[in-house]
Amino acid sequence: MTRMPPEVGNLEVKMHSDTHIVRQRFRVSYEYPVAFTEGLFTPENSLLLSTVTAYEPERQHRLFFCIDSGVMDAWPGLITDIHRYIHSHSASMSLACEPVIIQGGEACKNDPQLVQALLTKFADDGVDRQSFVVAIGGGAVLDMVGYAAGTAHRGIRLIRVPTTVLSQNDAGVGVKNGVNAFGNKNFLGTFCPPFAVLNDVRFIDTLEDRDKRAGMAEAVKVALIRDAQFFEWLCEHSAELGRFERSAMAYMIRRCAELHLQHIATSGDPFEYGSARPLDFGHWAAHKLEVLTDHALRHGEAVAIGIALDSCYSVEAGLLPEEALETICGLFDDVGLACTHDLLEASGVDGRLLIVAGLEEFRQHLGGELTVTMLRKLGEGVEVHEIDEGLLLRSIDRLMRRARAA
Amino acid sequence: MTRMPPEVGNLEVKMHSDTHIVRQRFRVSYEYPVAFTEGLFTPENSLLLSTVTAYEPERQHRLFFCIDSGVMDAWPGLITDIHRYIHSHSASMSLACEPVIIQGGEACKNDPQLVQALLTKFADDGVDRQSFVVAIGGGAVLDMVGYAAGTAHRGIRLIRVPTTVLSQNDAGVGVKNGVNAFGNKNFLGTFCPPFAVLNDVRFIDTLEDRDKRAGMAEAVKVALIRDAQFFEWLCEHSAELGRFERSAMAYMIRRCAELHLQHIATSGDPFEYGSARPLDFGHWAAHKLEVLTDHALRHGEAVAIGIALDSCYSVEAGLLPEEALETICGLFDDVGLACTHDLLEASGVDGRLLIVAGLEEFRQHLGGELTVTMLRKLGEGVEVHEIDEGLLLRSIDRLMRRARAA
Repeated sequence: MTRMPPEVGNLEVKMHSDTHIVRQRFRVSYEYPVAFTEGLFTPENSLLLSTVTAYEPERQHRLFFCIDSGVMDAWPGLITDIHRYIHSHSASMSLACEPVIIQGGEACKNDPQLVQALLTKFADDGVDRQSFVVAIGGGAVLDMVGYAAGTAHRGIRLIRVPTTVLSQNDAGVGVKNGVNAFGNKNFLGTFCPPFAVLNDVRFIDTLEDRDKRAGMAEAVKVALIRDAQFFEWLCEHSAELGRFERSAMAYMIRRCAELHLQHIATSGDPFEYGSARPLDFGHWAAHKLEVLTDHALRHGEAVAIGIALDSCYSVEAGLLPEEALETICGLFDDVGLACTHDLLEASGVDGRLLIVAGLEEFRQHLGGELTVTMLRKLGEGVEVHEIDEGLLLRSIDRLMRRARAA
Repeated sequence: MTRMPPEVGNLEVKMHSDTHIVRQRFRVSYEYPVAFTEGLFTPENSLLLSTVTAYEPERQHRLFFCIDSGVMDAWPGLITDIHRYIHSHSASMSLACEPVIIQGGEACKNDPQLVQALLTKFADDGVDRQSFVVAIGGGAVLDMVGYAAGTAHRGIRLIRVPTTVLSQNDAGVGVKNGVNAFGNKNFLGTFCPPFAVLNDVRFIDTLEDRDKRAGMAEAVKVALIRDAQFFEWLCEHSAELGRFERSAMAYMIRRCAELHLQHIATSGDPFEYGSARPLDFGHWAAHKLEVLTDHALRHGEAVAIGIALDSCYSVEAGLLPEEALETICGLFDDVGLACTHDLLEASGVDGRLLIVAGLEEFRQHLGGELTVTMLRKLGEGVEVHEIDEGLLLRSIDRLMRRARAA
């Protein structure tokens, strides 16, 4: 990532009764490439080389690799490939140390010792602000490594190599990092654009079917709130997607990533200072379901259920035409994603549905006012600030009945 | 602080052999007031009220106060004043909890448990992204609280109330936070502009003379590298400053803060992505001296010595006219700041001066190339990328002889 010079830099000095106020103003420009390639560590593939040398072609750059344990399992030759790649371009790059393997999955975001261990290694190996941390893995590993890289030396250059559908089409291309703490998801984190994102389609091939499916939920989400044409494409290609055909998967991932990037660049609020989160459609319930199932549900699986729930609510609230619900749920059926979960109906000791607490937790995460995105039509979201609990119960009931009838 | 909508939001899609690249681009605008007032917590002073309500005048805002133990010692009535202020404006503000007292001085940046305890309290008290953390204290407390606030929920709104000369004229008005780790100063931190900075001149009155003096070093520094006229003013008013006269102190602080703010806004690199640190004039040796003296030297005292050393080096290297050195050292003499320290001459077991290691540590902190600011004339810095050890030894020797002769 380059950040170009800020273009506003004026100070205004105002007298305000006895108080003198200087108004500090500046702008920071962010730029980073999100690349889609095949065979990233094949020596002939110049993408990583040209990324690392983009701004200082003459230097030998130091790279610190962090690899998701799940990726290592699927690609046992990966470290050899990395060594060979670095060796082939040794004038321009060197390893700060042997690649570090990080336990994949949400667990790595729950263990503060892991962040601490990684920071210690940055310090021990003399990783500095001009070094590159290359994180290869799923969303959780990218989040955790990104948090460590984002806070060490006030930010080390981070190259993300997302390896799952979900990270290639969503979290991995964005500007956030984070780890969980005190029982709160992403309680700690920063907004910190990466230096580059390098997506290699080959990593998708070795995913479990379940993970290939789960990652489609974010594509359905962003299509539903932003792009009717993409939603139509998803429906038309649901059979290919259900069979994980490579060209359909590749287009689904790339278009979803593009919509996500476009949102960040044009929303007016890339670092989320306001309390609206249009991209969090379906996410209030998804976050809660992940916790209630102790992360037995994948994030994408939970998002699919959250989308189904909020789509059903949108219909019940009279925002969305009746027939849209079946189109949405039908798409999930086709690609093999469930629209419900038994825990949607679980109650606490007070008799209240446990899922409902997710709304208050979501509000608290946003700060201030509750803002939830619902659907006005297929391809267009609408923000609401109140959720009617009665309608919510009716929506859950309706989805459960639909599931039981299938 | 408000961040205005980014104004660039275009994606360019390029084909690059088999690789498809989307270039993500956006800008983030930052804006925050730096106010100079008197009696911040006097109920009639509307500054804090108008700051907190600037963007949402209708809401009741939650404030979480963190107070430097040193400030509490000097202002035992401060918590009562805060309660009274909040009470007087209870429609617009409330306390998230009783103010938290934080051990002042560098020690608070060395103890990871303190950050952890503060984060726990944010979580326990439901502090969210729209809440305000108000940090009242010296630079170390502002840095530590700023780091906790900057990483919790990916950034809680931070209002800084700097209470020392050094924090009011320098660190407290800038965009950084940090804590020490693994023996490295500010190893952990983020670039995170505050929501507002509220300087109350009354806090200066109760500082120890030693701290009033130490804070002047940053004013001398920024004047020397940026503003000949301000340097002249400092020389002309050195007697008043030596007596800590309020109007001279207030102007010195405000002008120094303005130059610091101007640098951030116009340098082209507010978040320090490059490896130049023009404002770190005199700081490589200062950082090392602080460590060597186990922080017995105040930061400002160390900076004064670092400035004297690099000014002397500038003369020895033929960059700066001979007579400038005496003008600079004379100013330090007048305000009561030492230009040397015995540890400048201390050697390690290998016979090498310990201070010299500070250069390599500084280079490592910057990452990549060593960039040190030296002086070309009074009011103008110049960057150099190599330091001649022989000239450095000669400079140390010369300063020590000057000190002994006094």
